[in-house]
Amino acid sequence: MPGGRVLPHPDLGEVALTDVLFALSDPVRLDIVQQLAAGPMTQVACHEVGGDMAKSTRSHHLKTLREAGVVRNEPSGRERLLTLRRDELEQRFPGLLEALLRSR
Amino acid sequence: MPGGRVLPHPDLGEVALTDVLFALSDPVRLDIVQQLAAGPMTQVACHEVGGDMAKSTRSHHLKTLREAGVVRNEPSGRERLLTLRRDELEQRFPGLLEALLRSR
Repeated sequence: MPGGRVLPHPDLGEVALTDVLFALSDPVRLDIVQQLAAGPMTQVACHEVGGDMAKSTRSHHLKTLREAGVVRNEPSGRERLLTLRRDELEQRFPGLLEALLRSR
Repeated sequence: MPGGRVLPHPDLGEVALTDVLFALSDPVRLDIVQQLAAGPMTQVACHEVGGDMAKSTRSHHLKTLREAGVVRNEPSGRERLLTLRRDELEQRFPGLLEALLRSR
């Protein structure tokens, strides 16, 4: 992915609960969310989450999370920064994220 | 499905969070869970949930929910009764089901 590309992020108001649940129904993606709950992470650091896998596979997971409104993936200097859309998710789906983080 | 067949139900302790999230990531299945939250439902009544679809499709959805530990599907007289495993789910994944029911 080119360094500075600006990617689309959905409005949480347009995201369905089932889309979020599907995005989080994969162990690798749930791991990423779990780690992001502790703070933002560069995309490179993210590539250390969940063990060995093809870069394209991990990119696919990040895309799924971004398209479901769960994470932001934005250029930050020469890196890309991943952040959990925690407050927005809490507003849209109250209690959901906390329950998920508590349930691992 | 034969009237009185006893189907296997997993122990909630052996169910992964991702399995439950996947089971609930489909609008028809989430609808069924939503309705079961209001009380048990016969399998026949369940067949009125979510509009028109092939019986085999709905059976597949019920199987997915049962195998993820979300519902029980048990013989009851000449019918089959579906119940939400609400207390067990609350114990295994505190707050999750309530957040989901609140978020529709």
